Amino acid sequence: MLVLLDQTRLPAEEVELVCTDAPALVEAIRSLAVRGAPLLGIAGAYGVALAATRGFDVAEAAVALKGARPTAVNLSVGVRRAEAAHQAALAKTGDPAAAAAAALAAARSLHREDAEASARMAAHGLAFLDELLPGGGHRILTHCNSGSLVSGGEGTAFAVALAAHREGRLRRLWVDETRPLLQGARLTAYEAARSGMAYTLLTDNAAGSLFAAGEVDAVLIGADRIAADGSVANKVGSYPLAVLARYHHVPFIVVAPVTTVDPGTPDGASIEVEQRPGSEVTELSVPQVPVTGPGGGLPVAPLGTQAYNPAFDVTPPELVTAIVTEEGAVSPVTAETLAELCARSCP
Amino acid sequence: MLVLLDQTRLPAEEVELVCTDAPALVEAIRSLAVRGAPLLGIAGAYGVALAATRGFDVAEAAVALKGARPTAVNLSVGVRRAEAAHQAALAKTGDPAAAAAAALAAARSLHREDAEASARMAAHGLAFLDELLPGGGHRILTHCNSGSLVSGGEGTAFAVALAAHREGRLRRLWVDETRPLLQGARLTAYEAARSGMAYTLLTDNAAGSLFAAGEVDAVLIGADRIAADGSVANKVGSYPLAVLARYHHVPFIVVAPVTTVDPGTPDGASIEVEQRPGSEVTELSVPQVPVTGPGGGLPVAPLGTQAYNPAFDVTPPELVTAIVTEEGAVSPVTAETLAELCARSCP
Repeated sequence: MLVLLDQTRLPAEEVELVCTDAPALVEAIRSLAVRGAPLLGIAGAYGVALAATRGFDVAEAAVALKGARPTAVNLSVGVRRAEAAHQAALAKTGDPAAAAAAALAAARSLHREDAEASARMAAHGLAFLDELLPGGGHRILTHCNSGSLVSGGEGTAFAVALAAHREGRLRRLWVDETRPLLQGARLTAYEAARSGMAYTLLTDNAAGSLFAAGEVDAVLIGADRIAADGSVANKVGSYPLAVLARYHHVPFIVVAPVTTVDPGTPDGASIEVEQRPGSEVTELSVPQVPVTGPGGGLPVAPLGTQAYNPAFDVTPPELVTAIVTEEGAVSPVTAETLAELCARSCP
Repeated sequence: MLVLLDQTRLPAEEVELVCTDAPALVEAIRSLAVRGAPLLGIAGAYGVALAATRGFDVAEAAVALKGARPTAVNLSVGVRRAEAAHQAALAKTGDPAAAAAAALAAARSLHREDAEASARMAAHGLAFLDELLPGGGHRILTHCNSGSLVSGGEGTAFAVALAAHREGRLRRLWVDETRPLLQGARLTAYEAARSGMAYTLLTDNAAGSLFAAGEVDAVLIGADRIAADGSVANKVGSYPLAVLARYHHVPFIVVAPVTTVDPGTPDGASIEVEQRPGSEVTELSVPQVPVTGPGGGLPVAPLGTQAYNPAFDVTPPELVTAIVTEEGAVSPVTAETLAELCARSCP
């Protein structure tokens, strides 16, 4: 079985969620109990191992897991890696138990590599930031959650801010609340508070005032998929920050492991953006309160209100100052510089 | 006494709030039970009349009322107008009852003029929109609430969209939910639904995706104060829309009565922006749910989280395509064109 921290209950409660089969994990992924690009890859790999260990159809489980969040490329990558290990071991030994063990070993090594990648991204990211802004005292704006909750290690963009904090070079972390599901308010603020960082929460639409006041030195975000041309899919609200950053001449930096780059997606227009239920917008969901509306939350808009609720948006490469990976920073971001990175790091 | 619709209870309930003295009205204004630039002016004028009628100190009531929302210039204008009528009548007749009647008459005439101004803004706004976008089928994005709830008539920006709807030229009204207090989700969606408009709600941070997809033909917003140079203070989140609109070559139109222009405020930097309690961001407030957090709502962020919560932001004139008033549209927006408008309309 697979035991996860149920992120929908944070920060009010730390509740573990137990998945005994792949469909339960698919549901946990869809409901965002487990979320965040690198962590989804790890969870997907463990999900394949779980299906194999419990004797379910591995190929079927893999398809269901990959489809749970279509935009998150790391999920597919993690699932495919465990599935490939399973197939190879099965072909070699003919022994389902050995194949399941191979899938589990693949998931574990992905988990370990991800933790190491976090540490390397943090170091590269901080070096890049220090080079851009030699004065230190960084005031970093971030969106959504990209810390230890999304990763086997300390995360992506948040890990860079944490490294700056540990080195005494973080003046403030500005935390976008990240509507509709408030991952910033619930998760990033929780991680920032636990780490003792100087942080301030804001509504997503208040970021403009901070830029206008010259209070943002850099924007750091994660990514759910990076197309071959450098277009970045990340939590909805990232693109408006990129436009604001450009207008105010502030660096906009994406921090993500190399596996987030998907050479099979040529450009931003090819990225499938997951549309989520309108009830996430028309109702407020808080774990403390019993279900009341049709979507399970508290209705705030008139009943029958339609909502537009894309989970992600796409930032074109010309608005991205750099993509920081565990293999180093790519800047400027172009199809060529990204292809070089992939050639170097994908043996 | 003064009877108001308590806007904090919408759309779940239509509840009337009774104010029997000016301090009760001040509290209603602070808590946003009554809100919206033109309506604040009307409410302020009635508040002065109420104080006069009930025999309270009118000057003291006027100071308290003007201070309830410092950014909203219409509030001060309305208060001063009723106060001036009161003073003049008192000086002339020496009769407090006649002076109170004069204050009430001033409030009523402001109320009536505001309704007429709404109709004229709607006509000028639609004409301007049709000129910019001759094809019709307008897809208008709006932020916060600027309809009949903010006005003695049908409002400001919303009134333009409503006029387009009545003429069959509105394809869709995109409604920003407007965090933290969700005036878009609660109030604009309620007014749009009641008017039978085609509308769709979205989180503020999803507007970027709509612009990128070419789904927005114009942004229409109201204003709480317009400085002499044309800088526009409006609900926080307006400025990021102005930057997005500029980046995507979409017109950004401000609709407000002439009284919103404050010749005494030279520029954007001189506009005092009201900072509101952080608990509006760290807690969710829904009328259906009993008070639980220190701020009276449901905590979503870790306890002790600080929040940055400006009520307004300031958009510089170079990002504003036009300011539409009851006296016509001003475009381009400069200190000169605004001064001309004021010279024409402030006898």
